Amino acid sequence: MPYRAPVSEVRFVLDHVVGFDRVAATETFADATPETVEAILTEAGRMCEEVLAPLNRVGDLNPARLENGIVRTSPGFAEGFGAIAEGGWLGMSAEAENGGMGLPITLTMAVNEMIGSACLAIQLNPLMTQGQIEALEAHASDEIKALYLPKLISGEWCGTMNLTEPQAGSDVGALRTKAEPNGDGTYAVTGQKIYISWGDNDFTDNVCHLVLARLPDAAPGTKGISLFMVPKRLPQADGSAGVANSLKVVSLEHKLGLHGSPTAVMQYDGATGWLVGEPHRGMAAMFTMMNNARLGVGIQGLAIAEAAMQHAVAYAQGRKQGATPRGAGTILDHADVRRMVLGMKAETFVARTIAMDCAVALDMAKATGDADWAARGAFLTPIAKAYGTDTGIKVASEGIQVHGGMGFVEETGAAQYLRDVRVTTIYEGTNGIQAMDLVGRKLMDGGAAAFAVLDDLGQTDHEGLRAAVADLRDLTDWMLAQDMQDRFAGAVSYLAAFARVLGAAHHLRAAAADPDRAPLARFAVARLLPEALAEMAKARTGAEELYAVSDEVIAA
Amino acid sequence: MPYRAPVSEVRFVLDHVVGFDRVAATETFADATPETVEAILTEAGRMCEEVLAPLNRVGDLNPARLENGIVRTSPGFAEGFGAIAEGGWLGMSAEAENGGMGLPITLTMAVNEMIGSACLAIQLNPLMTQGQIEALEAHASDEIKALYLPKLISGEWCGTMNLTEPQAGSDVGALRTKAEPNGDGTYAVTGQKIYISWGDNDFTDNVCHLVLARLPDAAPGTKGISLFMVPKRLPQADGSAGVANSLKVVSLEHKLGLHGSPTAVMQYDGATGWLVGEPHRGMAAMFTMMNNARLGVGIQGLAIAEAAMQHAVAYAQGRKQGATPRGAGTILDHADVRRMVLGMKAETFVARTIAMDCAVALDMAKATGDADWAARGAFLTPIAKAYGTDTGIKVASEGIQVHGGMGFVEETGAAQYLRDVRVTTIYEGTNGIQAMDLVGRKLMDGGAAAFAVLDDLGQTDHEGLRAAVADLRDLTDWMLAQDMQDRFAGAVSYLAAFARVLGAAHHLRAAAADPDRAPLARFAVARLLPEALAEMAKARTGAEELYAVSDEVIAA
Repeated sequence: MPYRAPVSEVRFVLDHVVGFDRVAATETFADATPETVEAILTEAGRMCEEVLAPLNRVGDLNPARLENGIVRTSPGFAEGFGAIAEGGWLGMSAEAENGGMGLPITLTMAVNEMIGSACLAIQLNPLMTQGQIEALEAHASDEIKALYLPKLISGEWCGTMNLTEPQAGSDVGALRTKAEPNGDGTYAVTGQKIYISWGDNDFTDNVCHLVLARLPDAAPGTKGISLFMVPKRLPQADGSAGVANSLKVVSLEHKLGLHGSPTAVMQYDGATGWLVGEPHRGMAAMFTMMNNARLGVGIQGLAIAEAAMQHAVAYAQGRKQGATPRGAGTILDHADVRRMVLGMKAETFVARTIAMDCAVALDMAKATGDADWAARGAFLTPIAKAYGTDTGIKVASEGIQVHGGMGFVEETGAAQYLRDVRVTTIYEGTNGIQAMDLVGRKLMDGGAAAFAVLDDLGQTDHEGLRAAVADLRDLTDWMLAQDMQDRFAGAVSYLAAFARVLGAAHHLRAAAADPDRAPLARFAVARLLPEALAEMAKARTGAEELYAVSDEVIAA
Repeated sequence: MPYRAPVSEVRFVLDHVVGFDRVAATETFADATPETVEAILTEAGRMCEEVLAPLNRVGDLNPARLENGIVRTSPGFAEGFGAIAEGGWLGMSAEAENGGMGLPITLTMAVNEMIGSACLAIQLNPLMTQGQIEALEAHASDEIKALYLPKLISGEWCGTMNLTEPQAGSDVGALRTKAEPNGDGTYAVTGQKIYISWGDNDFTDNVCHLVLARLPDAAPGTKGISLFMVPKRLPQADGSAGVANSLKVVSLEHKLGLHGSPTAVMQYDGATGWLVGEPHRGMAAMFTMMNNARLGVGIQGLAIAEAAMQHAVAYAQGRKQGATPRGAGTILDHADVRRMVLGMKAETFVARTIAMDCAVALDMAKATGDADWAARGAFLTPIAKAYGTDTGIKVASEGIQVHGGMGFVEETGAAQYLRDVRVTTIYEGTNGIQAMDLVGRKLMDGGAAAFAVLDDLGQTDHEGLRAAVADLRDLTDWMLAQDMQDRFAGAVSYLAAFARVLGAAHHLRAAAADPDRAPLARFAVARLLPEALAEMAKARTGAEELYAVSDEVIAA
């Protein structure tokens, strides 16, 4: 079932649900006219349909592999990456002075969605590179910027993020990799990093690793972490990639999915690195990068939801089976199959509108410098990440179900979506971490950002939605009155409820703009609101209930 | 993480939640004394831990394969099947006159759970064989019984079910395989069957295929289907397997999971078959077999939930990461990880109690001949199948999440559980079909069986549960007043709500019997009841809402 880029659907969401016109009205993003948006989506969509989608199964069947220390990527991936680079899609939102297009992050996310639907394993590379571009723009010296940014933006080089170590996963502060001054302004970086997405490849001239490590005088924990640029090949005076640095890929993981994306264990043996940003301020730099990467991973979930939904719809419209209620003869005519397909469609819509709502806030913050926009973007980011990726898994799994027995057969392609997307609720901060971020850090403003979002959502004639917004306001008050453990105990449910209330509001907004969308909105709201209420009930249970079950009972 | 058979947990459920003592008190099952139950569970548990569990990953990495028309099974699977056969576990519930043990189906299911937790790919073979034993006991001639049953029960031979054809999946009535009389009492069976689990192997002397096919004078649809025994090798006069029949394995599927279980496309080219039961009554015979197979597949979901839960608990208890609230230092001490683990534990408990509740009803029906018990068993079967398998998927996926990044790495083993269990919501009737069976056929008694179950559940001091039972009663009345399409539109949610209300009642029963279980019960009920309410709201939406969304909007 060939993937079709949902250009008009994305346009609809931008124009009628998330108010992208406000972004285009700013001076910063004045170039993002409707014509430009249409051209970008159409051109990117064509590349995704024609060049990238055919690589999806190729990568799955021919995983990246390590041969004598060299990573060999899946057949066609070099050309796929080349097409993305040539199209200028890597640096869409990068600053113009280094070769970027300076376009809104909203549009980068829209294009990333399409690339991810077509071939998620490839898309992970641009996502990492984009995160690196952003981190360098925000924190690197002019020298590093001038050297690295043009090459990252053109795709001659690409970037990775090195955070995790075997003993330091979600607890980044436990990392042990060392960076010792060489005396010439550079550092010798030594340590092992794991789960490095696209840790190496055989199609870019260089691979630029941003590595978290400790300086000799570093404090323990997250306060003693610094960020270093450690390239695979040391840049020469003319800026080209020179001799090999003292680092290597030790092994590649054998993963459930994303086979085309090499996930590496990296070994740094006194590798030469350059400090990025201030000493001991590496976590702050990493967080800049991670926030947008989190939205980017939410988009990955959306991307797979869209692809899996298209795949299932096409199957359901083609598969004849049994006498059907309205005589159409295909399984889409059966009530329960239709329910599944509508659910996939309704939830994919919500994953997209929440992500785009968040992206618009980030763009407005950048364009206006307004702290309220920034707070809104920050508040919506963990919701976009967690709801987008949860939806990716749910929709991909439902897509298998729609296919019946064929869904379990790999050739069908439905199973790959589930295998590929399964990691997205884990990396860039597990969805549990996202939820804790939401009820912890993101409520540290006394709930101001949350209540601002709820104020918007409450402006509705829809009784059920108004009631749900009021309940969510009460729950937010309740959260603010709890200590952190009680908040954490209900964090995932709080996030899930918030996403569903947002989703109901977005569906109603779509229906108001286009009456043809009213039936799907009615279907969606009738499911999202009861689910939100259930999640709100679960969110209030508190930590005591969790610890009342003893470790002995758990292990019994 | 080695699997440990949950012997005492199963004993607890039998003794304190589902009232197995009533089964043991019947004359039919007088042998099922507490001592016998303990001995059976302990012995089967030991085999699962020591012999079968080590084969689980072996089968995954070394799939069954087809070599020159011969199926080669995974290394060690012959020995694994041999251990199951030798232990007498195939024919535990088969009639004693043919070599069975005549024990309650409840105990067979308990043992099947353990075998499935240890190695689901192997367990699918006994499950098919047990279904065949049951079908032959109920429908075959004395001659066929005498010839086949002892060999199936001993494990010298094994059995398969052949229903599906490319154009006939959930719509079995569309099948085309023909059976023409040979004039000597046998039939020539010709056609292609797909998705045949354990369609062949290299460790039993014979493979006995029960095949649905049409006689020359058959009516169209399900009324014209007959059932045939078509063995791989034709039995000789002395009962041993003789020359090859005219059938072959055309290919094996490349599947998401269950790699150790060969899923075959079977070709019958005038293969010799024997009629089982009456002509044109094949569907009735198949339904006898399928009903227990459905419960058996629910048990498969439970089996994976249990194994994945154990795996995740062991990981969470061993993984140190970050400062933890109570200083235990492992991730199990983090509120959100604890929430995930408790959820897995609470839902696995419910999957087991619903399945065992159902099994007890089937045993009581057999022992007493009481139609009310039979109706209760029939009503609970689709719930046990669908909730058990949905829970298998949910818990296996949550198990990956608990493992963090390691969950996505195949060597960890967490991912295999999700891959293996994913088919269980599809085969033996998709969970959508189960739900339609529940609101269709199983409410054809005017709701008598449903209300009888609800009467039991309503006998509680727990206010929330009493209210939910009352709501479920109202919803059942609502269902009964709708036409079939409206019922079908809400079927999956109705089943989900029913399962959650049953689960809440079972948790409260466990807490009443053992105060140490009260905290987990409190946690579980606080989640199950709000979820049940949400599902009840969704169940009432009706078909009109589904068809109001046009095919054009769906395909847009």
